Parts: sequence; structure tokens; C-alpha cells
Amino acid sequence: MPFTLHPNFDSKIFIADLPLCRLLLENNSHYRWLFLIPRRDHIIHIMDLSTEDQLQLLKEIDYVQKLLWTQFCPYRLNVAAIGNKTPQLHLHLIARFEIDPAWPGTVWDHPSQESYTENALQKVLDSIAVYLSQHPL
Amino acid sequence: MPFTLHPNFDSKIFIADLPLCRLLLENNSHYRWLFLIPRRDHIIHIMDLSTEDQLQLLKEIDYVQKLLWTQFCPYRLNVAAIGNKTPQLHLHLIARFEIDPAWPGTVWDHPSQESYTENALQKVLDSIAVYLSQHPL
Repeated sequence: MPFTLHPNFDSKIFIADLPLCRLLLENNSHYRWLFLIPRRDHIIHIMDLSTEDQLQLLKEIDYVQKLLWTQFCPYRLNVAAIGNKTPQLHLHLIARFEIDPAWPGTVWDHPSQESYTENALQKVLDSIAVYLSQHPL
Repeated sequence: MPFTLHPNFDSKIFIADLPLCRLLLENNSHYRWLFLIPRRDHIIHIMDLSTEDQLQLLKEIDYVQKLLWTQFCPYRLNVAAIGNKTPQLHLHLIARFEIDPAWPGTVWDHPSQESYTENALQKVLDSIAVYLSQHPL
């Protein structure tokens, strides 16, 4: 199945390819912020996916929620398909804390942005890798 | 099954009870903004729902996306479970236009708020009612 990633995702950090979606990390140390991007071309909205792909997306959303919950112990999880600026379906899955810069607002229009240091990034990637290896999808 | 609606939804406009969710309208004439709230108690995140309820939620998300797309002809659909301020699972489904006040940003932290006039509200409710009657779920 052909799949081209929109260039707006070039700055994100590759984590893994799940059965349907590419899993990426936002390079912003203020949040534990992941993306699920179905590896299908010409899909803008969830409703554009086939029923089978929607069911798989649901499984992967559930999986990534549990990954964030287990590995980072947040107060709340945000799950959203917005796409106003990037016309390729992508789900934001964000672990939110009452002490994060945007709390209790949303992260999308908040100016807080700070790239991970090399050490901090490695710690996050290791934590995600542990979950992926212990819970194969 | 018991179901108590969080008081933060008291200001929303009742549309219908779907098989799983209550469908409500945000009283903000700037947007066509609906809510799906699973009629289950003690549910904060999508992952808290049973697999059966998650599958039904997916169907109702698909249904409401198509309702908004068909009846209001938006440029983009936003679908989100955020819940930072209201600890009862609710999905936002919002028809977005390039001419709406928050575009291309998100609506949640944008100050634009204007209640519907009686006539405008009736027009929106009629449009939704047409879809519901023509597409029974």
C-alpha cells in the first residue's frame, strides 16, 4: 500500500510502524506527545478510512493511550484528530499533567516549545520501547 | 444502565440519544459543534470504555462526522476527546470553516462565543433533525 508522509511531519521523531499507523513523537519536552498516522494515502478525516482501517485505528488509539498511561502516569489523556494545517489524517495522543505549561488549556495554540535534550529524549524513547517490546500489538 | 451528566453540560442543547451516546450541541453560533457523551458512569478516557462500547463509539463518531459533512459542508472536521476541565468522557465533533473566527487554530482556547439567535438555532436543529430522520443509526 503506498504511503507518503506529509512534510509537516519531517520534524517528528520516528518511533515505530504499528499494523496500520506510523507512531511518531513530537520533539517538545514539555509534553509526552505522540502521533498516530494511518499509512494510507489521500486520507484526511477518520471517516475517509475503510471500516476495517477504522477498527484497527481504534485498537491503536487504545494501545497508545495505555502506553502513555502506563509509562508516564499522566493526569489526563488528550486524543484528537484536528488537521486544520496538515491535510493528512493524524491523531494526537498527549499525556497531560496539571503542572504542564498549557494546563488546563489545550496544547495546540500554546506557545510552549522546547526540544528534548539528548539525554531526556533517550529516556522517553527507552520508556516507549519498553512498552512496545512488552506489549506487542 | 445509570448515567449522570456532568453539570458542565447543562448549558449544551439536547439533540438526541444515540445507542451509546447523548448528542448535544454547543450554543455557539460561530461553529457547528456537537458532543458525543457515552451514557455510562465513571468513564473519563476512551480506554475506560469496554471494547464493545468503544466499537459503538467509533460508529457514532463516524455517523456524526457524516452528519456534519453532509448538512453543513465544512472544510475540515475536528474530532477530539480532551476533558481537562470536565472529567466525563465527551467527544467534540466540530465542523470547521476557513472563515470561522478561530481558523486555522483550534476552538478550545479561542474567545469567540456568541449564542445562537432563536431563528438560527432552529435552522441548525432542523438541519440535524433531517439527517437523523433520513439516516437512522
